[in-house]
Amino acid sequence: MSRFLLEKHRNLPAYVPGDHEEGDGFIRLNTNESPFPPSPAVREAVDKEIGRLNYYNDPDCTALRQALSGLYGLSPNQVIAGNGSDELLYLAFMAFADGTHPIALPDITYGYYDLFAASLGVPLVRKTLREDFSIDYRDYLGVGQTVLFPNPNAPTGLALPLEQIAEIVASNPENVVIVDEAYVDFGGETCLPLMKQYPNLLIVRTFSKSRSLAGARLGYAFAQRELIAALNTVRNAVNLYSVSRMAQAAGIAAIADNDYTLANCRKIIEARDYTTRMLRALGFEVLDSLGNFVFAKPRAMSAGTLAERLRERGILVRHWDRERIRDYLRITIGTMQEMQALEAAIEMIFGRA
Amino acid sequence: MSRFLLEKHRNLPAYVPGDHEEGDGFIRLNTNESPFPPSPAVREAVDKEIGRLNYYNDPDCTALRQALSGLYGLSPNQVIAGNGSDELLYLAFMAFADGTHPIALPDITYGYYDLFAASLGVPLVRKTLREDFSIDYRDYLGVGQTVLFPNPNAPTGLALPLEQIAEIVASNPENVVIVDEAYVDFGGETCLPLMKQYPNLLIVRTFSKSRSLAGARLGYAFAQRELIAALNTVRNAVNLYSVSRMAQAAGIAAIADNDYTLANCRKIIEARDYTTRMLRALGFEVLDSLGNFVFAKPRAMSAGTLAERLRERGILVRHWDRERIRDYLRITIGTMQEMQALEAAIEMIFGRA
Repeated sequence: MSRFLLEKHRNLPAYVPGDHEEGDGFIRLNTNESPFPPSPAVREAVDKEIGRLNYYNDPDCTALRQALSGLYGLSPNQVIAGNGSDELLYLAFMAFADGTHPIALPDITYGYYDLFAASLGVPLVRKTLREDFSIDYRDYLGVGQTVLFPNPNAPTGLALPLEQIAEIVASNPENVVIVDEAYVDFGGETCLPLMKQYPNLLIVRTFSKSRSLAGARLGYAFAQRELIAALNTVRNAVNLYSVSRMAQAAGIAAIADNDYTLANCRKIIEARDYTTRMLRALGFEVLDSLGNFVFAKPRAMSAGTLAERLRERGILVRHWDRERIRDYLRITIGTMQEMQALEAAIEMIFGRA
Repeated sequence: MSRFLLEKHRNLPAYVPGDHEEGDGFIRLNTNESPFPPSPAVREAVDKEIGRLNYYNDPDCTALRQALSGLYGLSPNQVIAGNGSDELLYLAFMAFADGTHPIALPDITYGYYDLFAASLGVPLVRKTLREDFSIDYRDYLGVGQTVLFPNPNAPTGLALPLEQIAEIVASNPENVVIVDEAYVDFGGETCLPLMKQYPNLLIVRTFSKSRSLAGARLGYAFAQRELIAALNTVRNAVNLYSVSRMAQAAGIAAIADNDYTLANCRKIIEARDYTTRMLRALGFEVLDSLGNFVFAKPRAMSAGTLAERLRERGILVRHWDRERIRDYLRITIGTMQEMQALEAAIEMIFGRA
């Protein structure tokens, strides 16, 4: 390691993303991407920006925030956009947490939270999921710390109902409760209705999943005006121009073609239901997911072995060799055809096992 | 201010960008953008990515780093890409500086450095520019601190010769020297030849200026492999996917069409020489800039007043109401036609003054 890197960063963990093979015929069920390309409107919108790329983008993402606030019935000053929801989550860590202001979050959840915390020296207070992998909302009542959880949670796909989130938010009035709704469009219940009542609620969203823009890097967040202003204060000092002209244009076009998103979400939900039934019929234990993925435990062979065998057949799924979850696979929901290909591959593998 | 924002961030200064009016006929000579659209190759390259935006981008920017290393005669592991050079500068601040590891830099320079420092609690040791606005390189010899300066410096356009940079780098072997070469393609001397010899040299670059991609957000940096690895360690924990598919594709296309960039740089240099002579003939004091802008002091009226009068005539230039530089304007070099429009406007204004 370079001797120039500050001591405190030398043991930063690495984020291990899912494999990114492409153009080689792999069926990618490993990174919770949408199997559908973005709305056709995105192509035209981005193309219009190319001739203007010599000019800086609007640092305030004005038109994009207007589009989002219009769709969700908010005011533009209740919206912030970022270079992926990862950037907004990082800014929230900076704004609300540090060495003496910890964050409470589930012990099994999105892996990047660990890295934000490590890079900023924020202690994490990990609340153990129940045996059935659900979040016990009572773990977060009155903790007096910043609270963070995805809803639905990843990689489990399990969601908290609105009333329980309301209790968490109400019981921590002096701290921000960050609800990461990356996967909310696939059947979960948004906590947007709580926003009016609670100045400490921050809802983080992404264009990466339901809106088919993972490769465009675009996230957004909702909160009352003052909380958004606090995030902007930090954002302005870190990377004011982080959302490119192309990303802003793509996002505006995707919002305008909301019917396309809704139709895709319906297809994903249908394919998820199919996949859940199919895997259960093949002897898997499958959690009732509300995300664009399922968390499933094969019984016929170890999850790690099955992941390898699927890879040999050109299908990528996600496996973590980690306590409590190493018996499970997280399988992204693709098209119905892709899920049927998965089914055929598993049948072949189990037949030979 | 939101009561949830950590105390330490409550007085963060705001970055005040140049005005971003567009589509309204303004001649934009205020944000050091290129007046030329990006290479025609960019349009096709970005268009190819649109249908794949549902898939995540390559977090390692492999093809882009290969293109950059090919053009500049380096190895890909000596290159890192970022969401604008601002992101890479921020990551460098994180990696090498903190509350007890200050950064030495010029007192008059790129304004964003102040914000990175403020947001991360990094003390800045400001070295006063000489009366003629040049950097005295001796101020940075053996300071035993991270050193940062743009070369050419902004807003002055003045550059240090390679030998003086070599002395700075050699005399601070235990600290990183960051040279921000945002404006180097307009006649400055890159310190790339020093990289082989000095493991503590970090060269930060951008696609925003000479490559006409300000709105695409794309920066890059060169250093020896270990220093790049250190930056990647921090980058991985902050925003691994920060460079979108579209930005990577745009960058690769811009590098492939390097002749277009070189031709544009020649035009800018020609227009800069014209502008320098023209302004001097109109009674301005003009620094000998090696950037795509000039720093000029009008004698016939105050700089602030002139900026306002130009704005009334649809021409935007940059003025800071700040000690030592409030008598100056920073004027971006546009096309020859734009600079002639500026000349005509100034003549009109002075005629009436």
